[in-house]
Amino acid sequence: MQPVRVAVVPGIPMFAAAVVEGGGEPTDPAQADAIVWADPTDAEGLRTLLATSPARWVQLPFAGIERFVDAGVITPDRTWTCAKGIYGPATAEHALALLLCGARLLHEHARRTSWWPRERMNDSRRLAGQTVLIVGTGGIGRALARMLEPLESKIVAVNRSGKPMPGAVLTGARDAMPDLVPDADFIALAAALTPETRHLLDAEMFARMKPEAWIVNVGRGALIDTNALVDALSARAIAGAGLDVTDPEPLPDDHPLWRLDNVIITSHTANTFRMAMPELAAMIKENVARFGRGDELDGLVDPALGY
Amino acid sequence: MQPVRVAVVPGIPMFAAAVVEGGGEPTDPAQADAIVWADPTDAEGLRTLLATSPARWVQLPFAGIERFVDAGVITPDRTWTCAKGIYGPATAEHALALLLCGARLLHEHARRTSWWPRERMNDSRRLAGQTVLIVGTGGIGRALARMLEPLESKIVAVNRSGKPMPGAVLTGARDAMPDLVPDADFIALAAALTPETRHLLDAEMFARMKPEAWIVNVGRGALIDTNALVDALSARAIAGAGLDVTDPEPLPDDHPLWRLDNVIITSHTANTFRMAMPELAAMIKENVARFGRGDELDGLVDPALGY
Repeated sequence: MQPVRVAVVPGIPMFAAAVVEGGGEPTDPAQADAIVWADPTDAEGLRTLLATSPARWVQLPFAGIERFVDAGVITPDRTWTCAKGIYGPATAEHALALLLCGARLLHEHARRTSWWPRERMNDSRRLAGQTVLIVGTGGIGRALARMLEPLESKIVAVNRSGKPMPGAVLTGARDAMPDLVPDADFIALAAALTPETRHLLDAEMFARMKPEAWIVNVGRGALIDTNALVDALSARAIAGAGLDVTDPEPLPDDHPLWRLDNVIITSHTANTFRMAMPELAAMIKENVARFGRGDELDGLVDPALGY
Repeated sequence: MQPVRVAVVPGIPMFAAAVVEGGGEPTDPAQADAIVWADPTDAEGLRTLLATSPARWVQLPFAGIERFVDAGVITPDRTWTCAKGIYGPATAEHALALLLCGARLLHEHARRTSWWPRERMNDSRRLAGQTVLIVGTGGIGRALARMLEPLESKIVAVNRSGKPMPGAVLTGARDAMPDLVPDADFIALAAALTPETRHLLDAEMFARMKPEAWIVNVGRGALIDTNALVDALSARAIAGAGLDVTDPEPLPDDHPLWRLDNVIITSHTANTFRMAMPELAAMIKENVARFGRGDELDGLVDPALGY
C-alpha cells in the first residue's frame, strides 16, 4: 500500500512527526493526498495553495474555522476536518473555571485589598444544585457536563437538533432556548458560530434571564450581542459574565466591558497553543492512519453547515 | 421507646425541626440527653451550659472546633460530634475554584483592564496532567478528589496515617510531606488544625517546592506559616496562592498578602452559613435518629486528637 502523502503547511515539526507516526509521508502540496493547514489566520494562503494541489482531504488543526467558511475556502469537492473534538477537555476546564468564578465571586475577591464584608458573605453560591444550561454539545459541552457531574449541578443542554446529551437531565433544540433560559442559574456557551447562532444571546434573551444568571462564553464572541450584554450587565438584569471570547476580539482598551465589576475577561486563553499541541498531534496521527485505511475521519466538517 | 430529648442552643428553627424529624423531642438543656450547640464562637457559653446539663452527647454543627478544644470544653465524659464530614462538598468546590484560578490565572485576568499580552499566553495551565497534592483526606479532601477525577489531574494525598484515599495514585503519611511536596504542581490544604499540623507549610517546605507550585488553603490559616508564605510568594519561589483562610483572620488591611499579584484571598467564604444549612440540618436529623437507635454517630470527635 502506498503511504498517504501529506503536506504540513507551515511545517510544524511536531505535526510532521505525527504524519509519519500515522503512516503518512511528508510531501509538498503539489503532490499531496492531504494537507495539514496549520495557520488559523490565513484563509487566502490556503486558497492559493489548493488551486494547484490535488489534495482530497484538508486537516485544519484548530476549531475556529469561520474565517475559512466566510472566505468560501471550504468547498464540498474535498473532505475537511478540523479540531472541533480536540479542544473539548481543555476548553471545558476553562468554562468550569469561569462558572466557579461566577459562583464563588473570584473576580470580586481578586480585586479586593481588604477582608470581605460580613453583609456580602451570603452572595457566594455553590454550583451544587444550580441549573447550568450548556449551549452546544460538541467536545466542549460534553466534557463540561462530565466535569460538572461530581459537583451535582442540574445540567440542561441545547443543541441544533435536540439530540440528548449524556449527563443532561434535558436537552432542547435551539428553538427551545427562550423557554430554557429563564430557569438557568448559569449559562455556558460552547457552540460553533454559524449564521444561526450569531447573537444567540441578544437583548430579548437577556430579558428572559434570572437576575442571578451568570454567563460564560468559551465559544465565539459573536454568539453574544455585545451591546445587549453590556446593557444587561450594567442594569444588573443578570448577575455577571465570564468571557474568554469577545466581539470584537481582542477587546479594545476603551470598551465598557473592562469597567464592569461583574465581568471577568480571560483574553482567549481557554485553550492555548501550548495546551493543545499534544492532542492536535495525536489527532493528526489518528486521521492520517484512518485516511490510509479509508476509514471515516475524526472532526469532519460539513461544508454546508460550516462546522 | 422514649424520644431523645435534644436542646438546640441557640434555638435555630431549621435545626429544631431537624431534631423532630430525627425522632427527637426539643427540650431545655437541664433535661436534655443531647445538645446541639449552634454558636461556633462561644466555647464559654457551652461550658456554662454543660455544668448543669446531663447531656451525654453534644453536636457541634460546624467543623472548626479548635476554639472548643483549646478551651478544654471537649471532655471525654461525653460523646462529641461535629460537622467535619458535612462541609466536604461545598468546601471542596471552593478548593477546586481556587485550583482552577491558579491554573487559569483568573486573579490576574480579573485585575486587568486590557487584553492579555501575547507573550503571556502560554502562562496558563490546564489542571489535566498536573500533580495535585491534597493534604487531609476527610470530607473535603475526598470530595475534592472526586471533583478532580474528570479533570484528569494526578492526585496524591497526605493524611496522618497514610491510609489510602480513593482516587489518589499515592497516599503518604504526614512525615512523607517533605518527599511529596517537590513533585506537586498544586497543593490543596484541607486538613484539620492540630498541634501537629500547625505551620505544616513552613519556610523549609516552601524551599522544597517547584517554582510552578500553586498553594490552596481551605483548611485553617495556621496550617501555613504566613511570614514564610509571604517570603516565598514575594521571591517567586512558588507560583502563587489561593487562600480562603488566613492567619491572622480576618487578614488586616495592611497585610502584605493583599499587595501580592500572585495571591487571591476569598475571606473564608468556601462554605457560608447559607450554603451549609440544608446539610447541617440533615446531619442533625440523621444523628438524632442514630442516637435514638443507639447507633454510631456521624462526625465523631476524638477528644484526645482534638478533631
